[in-house]
Amino acid sequence: MSPVKVFGHPMSTNVVRVLLCLEEVGAQYELVPVDFLAGQQNDPQHVQLNPFGKIPAFQDGDLVLFESRAIAKYILRKHRTNDLDLLKENSSIEEAAMVDVWTEVESQQYYPAISPVVFECIIFPIMRGTTANQEVIDGSLERLKKVLEIYEARLEKSRYLAGDSISFADINHFPFTFYFMATPYAPVFDGYPKVKAWWEGLMARPAVKKVCANMPTEF
Amino acid sequence: MSPVKVFGHPMSTNVVRVLLCLEEVGAQYELVPVDFLAGQQNDPQHVQLNPFGKIPAFQDGDLVLFESRAIAKYILRKHRTNDLDLLKENSSIEEAAMVDVWTEVESQQYYPAISPVVFECIIFPIMRGTTANQEVIDGSLERLKKVLEIYEARLEKSRYLAGDSISFADINHFPFTFYFMATPYAPVFDGYPKVKAWWEGLMARPAVKKVCANMPTEF
Repeated sequence: MSPVKVFGHPMSTNVVRVLLCLEEVGAQYELVPVDFLAGQQNDPQHVQLNPFGKIPAFQDGDLVLFESRAIAKYILRKHRTNDLDLLKENSSIEEAAMVDVWTEVESQQYYPAISPVVFECIIFPIMRGTTANQEVIDGSLERLKKVLEIYEARLEKSRYLAGDSISFADINHFPFTFYFMATPYAPVFDGYPKVKAWWEGLMARPAVKKVCANMPTEF
Repeated sequence: MSPVKVFGHPMSTNVVRVLLCLEEVGAQYELVPVDFLAGQQNDPQHVQLNPFGKIPAFQDGDLVLFESRAIAKYILRKHRTNDLDLLKENSSIEEAAMVDVWTEVESQQYYPAISPVVFECIIFPIMRGTTANQEVIDGSLERLKKVLEIYEARLEKSRYLAGDSISFADINHFPFTFYFMATPYAPVFDGYPKVKAWWEGLMARPAVKKVCANMPTEF
């Protein structure tokens, strides 16, 4: 059986989300380079895979998927075992619901709060050659602190976001948090010791270490 | 067994997402009013249910959930039968993945394109007393047209977004599209006949009609 294909760039946060899931489940895969800095995501052969012209796209035999969160869930379902069920869908609908809640929290609350700092400090300088807008960063940090306060309270009650075992909800936080930690604002996390320990626990995972190796933080 | 409780306001798009799922599966529920125009989502008793101070929150016995997409999935899983499986998780991981793909497309591509028109024309005037910003609307419509073009191509291939039967991916488009259709820009959809027919099909569903009855479009 030929390995699945991920079409994208290993620096992209959305591609990283997919690669991390593949590494967590120990799946074989091939990363087919799409140079988004050169605009290759708009080339006709990529648009055939992802009609929105974004990375990643994903292929498993005849099945073609896009949208990184959807691809990630497919990978986790395909490779789930009794010991490895990061969506907790084999456990109970209540446990699966907690994974969904904190996965949505990442998408709707955490990402909008943390991503502007990463865009201003890392992504826009690379893609557009701009310098960071301090006003945007300050607003983003204020919002992030409110979110981290809620995370701190949550992680006082359970070891991971969706309960006492790790889930997709946790690892889903990796891509943007990793780049945030490469900005001058990383010390913000020091004010939230449970969150900091949770993050350090994520960083210690072998799958995370493997994906990190291809994510440059100095440009 | 006491019915589940939805804490929110029947005008809110995120509350509507949850109510629509409850109506689709025929579940009993109680809507506990939280007046977001009066800021009640920040009252301590609501923040206990949803730490981010947003609506909706949801309670089923001891289980408390927030984030409307997560609540919706819980409801659809709890009430799924062989004939009614709007997440298609009982079908195959490939079919479930297509539901996830087009659910994420709604969240990441469709919502960002359509929502500014709804915010400018309906939501901000009610909540902030502002008048619509035409520049924002024009940018949003340009973006929306590109998205609708991709939807049109998709709906030429399959009757619904995730395949030939309806799924959560389709009904998830209801709340914002409903309000968009109450703006002067509704005729934009006339340029996309497959999308228009798909939308009219959604509007004809009994569950949709029931939820619509509590969504005012004139203020």
